[in-house]
Amino acid sequence: MKFCADCGHAVEHRTPPGDHLPRYVCPSCGTIHYQNPKIVAGCVPEYEGRLLLCRRAIEPRYGFWTIPAGFMENGETTQQAAQRESLEEACAEVVVGSLLAVVHVLHADQVHVMFRAQLPVPQFAAGAESLEVMLCEEAAIPWDEIAFLSVEFALRRYLDDRRRRVEEHHFTTIDLRRGAGA
Amino acid sequence: MKFCADCGHAVEHRTPPGDHLPRYVCPSCGTIHYQNPKIVAGCVPEYEGRLLLCRRAIEPRYGFWTIPAGFMENGETTQQAAQRESLEEACAEVVVGSLLAVVHVLHADQVHVMFRAQLPVPQFAAGAESLEVMLCEEAAIPWDEIAFLSVEFALRRYLDDRRRRVEEHHFTTIDLRRGAGA
Repeated sequence: MKFCADCGHAVEHRTPPGDHLPRYVCPSCGTIHYQNPKIVAGCVPEYEGRLLLCRRAIEPRYGFWTIPAGFMENGETTQQAAQRESLEEACAEVVVGSLLAVVHVLHADQVHVMFRAQLPVPQFAAGAESLEVMLCEEAAIPWDEIAFLSVEFALRRYLDDRRRRVEEHHFTTIDLRRGAGA
Repeated sequence: MKFCADCGHAVEHRTPPGDHLPRYVCPSCGTIHYQNPKIVAGCVPEYEGRLLLCRRAIEPRYGFWTIPAGFMENGETTQQAAQRESLEEACAEVVVGSLLAVVHVLHADQVHVMFRAQLPVPQFAAGAESLEVMLCEEAAIPWDEIAFLSVEFALRRYLDDRRRRVEEHHFTTIDLRRGAGA
């Protein structure tokens, strides 16, 4: 951020009085522009034991496999966002189920919220952001070509829980910032 | 948003090619400024059966009671945000526990993520954003003076689950937009 979105003046990066972190502050109109994490919502859709995976047609991670997921919009719930992303990326009408994973992706300032989902009928196709979409047996999951660590985490927890016949939710944190321990 | 945060030019509000929603778009540098929901993280801290409540010293809902909660920052987890807010608003060092509630607050473009928490020692005080802080028996909770519907939801689910000796998580949606059904 270089300019104030409210008045167009150049912003400064400093800690406002009473605050504890530097913010983008407009010296002209006084507006403080806070920066907060964004939510990525997605799901693991299943049809008769197989999981729906999409091969990305966009950067980052072009050509790698993922589950339907994307930035949550204003005016929708996380479940609706996961459902919408399934329609957009895989032309799939899914029924979103229980909470599967919450992944804090610290280096990207994102929180990924992943659900279980059912695909009632095996109808799907590549949406605009996908090269191809497939229903995949557990043994055929291309683990070396999964686009994101959060997606790998969600898939592994999904399969573990399915094996144990439970539906738990799982928190984790991923931090690829330079110098980060984890 | 009136001006481009990247170049300072006046933005337009229109649907970009290939998109399905209107966005703030800069006609000069081409940047699309997406608007997404913000996460509010909080917790219900308990000490020997009593719950920690804070009376708000700021708007909105000045003078009403709430639990420690506030906007999640970049670079922290939702649990860390809930812990930090407890320290800031109630000078309380809590141990954050299981997920309690996820509330989609559609009219505010917010997702409230609430946890259970333990207050190991009964040490607390009013932080800068609180008029007073108290440990409250269930029977003494000022239900008519709770600041937000999401906080009332979290408290009621907390107490219901405690009575049933379970720790479940609960999703709900609150929509006070004009014309909204719920």
